[in-house]
Amino acid sequence: MDVPVVPDKVDPDLLTAVLDGRWGEVKRGVRAQMAAEQFQEAGDVGVEEHRAQVLDQLRKLAATDRPALGFDPAYGGKGDVGGSVMSFEMLGLGDLSLMVKAGVQWGLFGGAVQLLGTERHHEKYLRRIMDLDLLGCFAMTEHGHGSDVQHLHTTAEYDPASGEFIVDSPDPGATKEYIGNAARDGRLAVVFAQLITGGGSRGVHAFVVPIRDEAGAPAPGVTIEDCGPKAGLNGVDNGRLTFDQVRVPREALLNRFGDVAEDGTYSSPIESDGRRFFTMLGTLIRGRVSVGGSAGNATKRALALAIRYGEQRRQFRRPEGDEVVILDYLGHQRKLLPALAKTYALHFAQGELVAKLNDIATDAPEEEQRELESRAAGLKAVQTWHATSTIQAAREACGGAGYLSENLLPGLKADTDVFTTFEGDNTVLLQLVAKGLLTRYKEHFQDLSPLATARFVAEQLVGTVLERTAARQFIERFTDSDDATALFDREWQLRLFEDREEHVLDGVANRLRKAAEDPFGVFNDAQDHVLLAGRVHVERLVLEAFARAVEACADPEAKMLLERVCDLYALSAIEADRAWFLEHGRITASRSKAVTAAVNSLCGELRPHARTLVDAFAIPEQFLAAPMLRS
Amino acid sequence: MDVPVVPDKVDPDLLTAVLDGRWGEVKRGVRAQMAAEQFQEAGDVGVEEHRAQVLDQLRKLAATDRPALGFDPAYGGKGDVGGSVMSFEMLGLGDLSLMVKAGVQWGLFGGAVQLLGTERHHEKYLRRIMDLDLLGCFAMTEHGHGSDVQHLHTTAEYDPASGEFIVDSPDPGATKEYIGNAARDGRLAVVFAQLITGGGSRGVHAFVVPIRDEAGAPAPGVTIEDCGPKAGLNGVDNGRLTFDQVRVPREALLNRFGDVAEDGTYSSPIESDGRRFFTMLGTLIRGRVSVGGSAGNATKRALALAIRYGEQRRQFRRPEGDEVVILDYLGHQRKLLPALAKTYALHFAQGELVAKLNDIATDAPEEEQRELESRAAGLKAVQTWHATSTIQAAREACGGAGYLSENLLPGLKADTDVFTTFEGDNTVLLQLVAKGLLTRYKEHFQDLSPLATARFVAEQLVGTVLERTAARQFIERFTDSDDATALFDREWQLRLFEDREEHVLDGVANRLRKAAEDPFGVFNDAQDHVLLAGRVHVERLVLEAFARAVEACADPEAKMLLERVCDLYALSAIEADRAWFLEHGRITASRSKAVTAAVNSLCGELRPHARTLVDAFAIPEQFLAAPMLRS
Repeated sequence: MDVPVVPDKVDPDLLTAVLDGRWGEVKRGVRAQMAAEQFQEAGDVGVEEHRAQVLDQLRKLAATDRPALGFDPAYGGKGDVGGSVMSFEMLGLGDLSLMVKAGVQWGLFGGAVQLLGTERHHEKYLRRIMDLDLLGCFAMTEHGHGSDVQHLHTTAEYDPASGEFIVDSPDPGATKEYIGNAARDGRLAVVFAQLITGGGSRGVHAFVVPIRDEAGAPAPGVTIEDCGPKAGLNGVDNGRLTFDQVRVPREALLNRFGDVAEDGTYSSPIESDGRRFFTMLGTLIRGRVSVGGSAGNATKRALALAIRYGEQRRQFRRPEGDEVVILDYLGHQRKLLPALAKTYALHFAQGELVAKLNDIATDAPEEEQRELESRAAGLKAVQTWHATSTIQAAREACGGAGYLSENLLPGLKADTDVFTTFEGDNTVLLQLVAKGLLTRYKEHFQDLSPLATARFVAEQLVGTVLERTAARQFIERFTDSDDATALFDREWQLRLFEDREEHVLDGVANRLRKAAEDPFGVFNDAQDHVLLAGRVHVERLVLEAFARAVEACADPEAKMLLERVCDLYALSAIEADRAWFLEHGRITASRSKAVTAAVNSLCGELRPHARTLVDAFAIPEQFLAAPMLRS
Repeated sequence: MDVPVVPDKVDPDLLTAVLDGRWGEVKRGVRAQMAAEQFQEAGDVGVEEHRAQVLDQLRKLAATDRPALGFDPAYGGKGDVGGSVMSFEMLGLGDLSLMVKAGVQWGLFGGAVQLLGTERHHEKYLRRIMDLDLLGCFAMTEHGHGSDVQHLHTTAEYDPASGEFIVDSPDPGATKEYIGNAARDGRLAVVFAQLITGGGSRGVHAFVVPIRDEAGAPAPGVTIEDCGPKAGLNGVDNGRLTFDQVRVPREALLNRFGDVAEDGTYSSPIESDGRRFFTMLGTLIRGRVSVGGSAGNATKRALALAIRYGEQRRQFRRPEGDEVVILDYLGHQRKLLPALAKTYALHFAQGELVAKLNDIATDAPEEEQRELESRAAGLKAVQTWHATSTIQAAREACGGAGYLSENLLPGLKADTDVFTTFEGDNTVLLQLVAKGLLTRYKEHFQDLSPLATARFVAEQLVGTVLERTAARQFIERFTDSDDATALFDREWQLRLFEDREEHVLDGVANRLRKAAEDPFGVFNDAQDHVLLAGRVHVERLVLEAFARAVEACADPEAKMLLERVCDLYALSAIEADRAWFLEHGRITASRSKAVTAAVNSLCGELRPHARTLVDAFAIPEQFLAAPMLRS
């Protein structure tokens, strides 16, 4: 197989156009606005000044038409969900406090009003939310329940006598925790609480509850605490909310998925309390998608800083005399270039996800909706872990300079650190992904008689053989090949990822089939296996997205470069998991070593393009203005 | 093989005694002092207040006899090098700014005066350094040269006419950078500069240079800048020092390893400029050893916080009803328990290192000295990377609570982040380790005629066969064994680590033998291999140290528990590198899977002892006083 040679120099603008893709205009608009001085990061200011500055910047955003993108045109919105998400995630190139504050206001709070509420709420609130006349909170997480929100403790009990709901925090664990906009700016909160009516609970619903008066004083019965300093994101005013028998009108219930009549009768288009709650949650995935994309953009910035530094910083002389720029060292390339390739891969996967989110029909089959949610969950987990490790590596790659606040990496590290655990804890999210994938084994779990079990195992084996023949045969053709270029065969890479996913899933299903005997024990013993299933599923989706993007690239030079970046992503992912491939006979020992050699050689090959690859992110220069880069 | 069963509950005090070991009294003394209120961490104060508080705390330390531990008894010191290092690293349990500030003052600055200076310097400075009458800096790193200090640009040219040295920063890259104690408190600096006399350079030497007058104003010709806010360690006043033709007397040269006579004649007990410089550096390893140990103690604190939280925080119900504490999840155990086992392993390896540092004879053969330096470098790298990843995992394991400053993990993360790149960049250090190991191949690199090369390869093969027979045969006996308990055979684990190190080193030597043709290219292509050699060497030393500590443990219950912790360390290290063992035929695929299963089962087995294992660190409670742990 011929491996084409990438031209010496590719124009980064060509790549930018590819990266910007379908929502390029929105992205260019955000970039242009963020390049203005007033969007500069806060630097070394106190918490209060930082909060004030971020609110000012938020008002500047509100003056554009982008906050309207995600909302219903009937109320002045633009109905462009994809553009909306892209405009949030582009904020990830700058001060992440602004991204989070914007996300809380328009994504979480505004999104909940729009997607869980009905006309009466839209009429009353949406315009005021868009133009920032009304600042609000999304009060879901509680002190005692973060991941397991289905079991949160806040109650909203309907009182038919007054026609009101009584919102209450019955115990300290019910206090709403880490709520953005709560400590300083929020006036209204969407509060998630167990709805109680007619003496029975109908599960978690959302209610609009005033938390402050016009003057900013806490509303009666509402206690507000400031969460105080955090590792980062100190421009966001996170707080705690406790409710002591707070009365709100019946209409405060965001009643799209469930309503209470004046007499207290509950009604819902969805019978099951659990399914209704997960349907409600499912409508709220935009926030999760935006966090994943923002993490990607913060990662790009860290890589741009570290690669510029690595091209400029010299250390140690060659035997022949001159000092070497550190990015010429293989060890340094290894720290940054596979991470850069993965950043490209995730960028394209994120682009596909946003397009799917945008294009899904409102009446799409539930299966399609669940698939979208699963993809959003999985990509968020993988993107934010990638951000954490890559920003860490970028900091280390800049040595002492990377530790000084003026060089921006400490802020990036601190701000993004919570991304792995907010908007869904990554571990819990990957587990969700795996559980979704296992639904096709569901019938076997329902009937666990010995006969059914035997049938299941038999079917699984037959299925394996039938299903896998094509992929396995394809892989096996290459397994013992001595042809090193075979590693760069995209088809082989794709089949390898696909086959791994199938095999891991089969294995998990097989283990969980015993779950009826000891549900917690069996599940828990297999938890690492379950998490692996989630991860390899996402890796397959990511490689497919990258491969499609390369295929679709119209410019031949950009395409050739992207081919090599895609190879580096695929092969470094295989290298990282080569133990699995070896354990399962998918690669031989010598082929495994060849993968490592190929990653090294790709690092060398892409080294001259590293600057082009980060310049293509088109990050406004003020977010790269680190003194360490002054030559 | 019988695997003994650990008793249900082991007394943590028994483990504390084992962990404290030889310098237990010093450690208990530090702990008792640090438990006092005045050693509480700074919390949310500004930089200036934090700096003032740390200086106050430093004065409290100066009031004890511990700063004297590392100094010469002739000047009021105690001559207890091990105790000195242990007393520094114990500070790692508290505010790390204090640890660094103490390390700068007594370890780096005081250490340089003692170890590079002679009687005239000792007489003049040591007492004042110990009692904090004289605060000082260790000015080695420059803006342009951090890792490659041999080529720093600051000059100290001898002027025979006046009998003075002229210390100068000839270019912006020569500015001394990140210098602790420089921005605020330092009066004197040990400045590393190229010594020039008689028109020639004699390489890097150290000079004592006043940088401020009594009132705190910069000395004439000295420019001092504040490095400004950093990711962490903001209680340390790091600064930049630039020298403009600053004159110091001839006696300012710390002249133990090289001196200049009045007429400018240079003399030294060591002929080669390079060897002299590395000998000087070699005497300064205490700082590096202390940083590694402090990183270990900060890691212990993070684990103690996360494990207490994991035993208390509940999330999701069992199918049977009650909510599960998160440390009961295998996924959560996997995040924390192997890291805890490695923390134990590194603790014992650090203990051995400090003992060696303490016990080495002043006239020890150079080889022994180099071995000690290599061990210090390698352990520092492995310990600080372990700190970075473990503190990160601990933060994530505490979710949103772990992101609030009040819960201490953000400070721990931010403060320790620079440890991987200061006191020697970890990558550079591992490379040094590998280079040291390769010296036994040295003769082959010196004569690279075809004949010599052929002989080398032949010898290597013979050597391999002869040397390896014992270890390999031992390993092979187990390779295909179906006996799962064989994994817990300490001898097998040790031999596996030993054999891996030998094999990796042979491979590196083989690759580098071609270096004469293209020294930079050949070395650089093999850099990942070189770094691997450094890492696996350290892992072998660490496992051996842990195994010896377990063997030496007198209490039978503590010993049984430590045996299992040691197994978890060994097997999780094998698991992490199982791709290598598979690629090189050291384990079979099924054995590799058995290793993963064994790590899972050890996690379950050690879960009930997790609290005991962190309680044994005996961390003063005020450093664990996180509000998230209030039940």
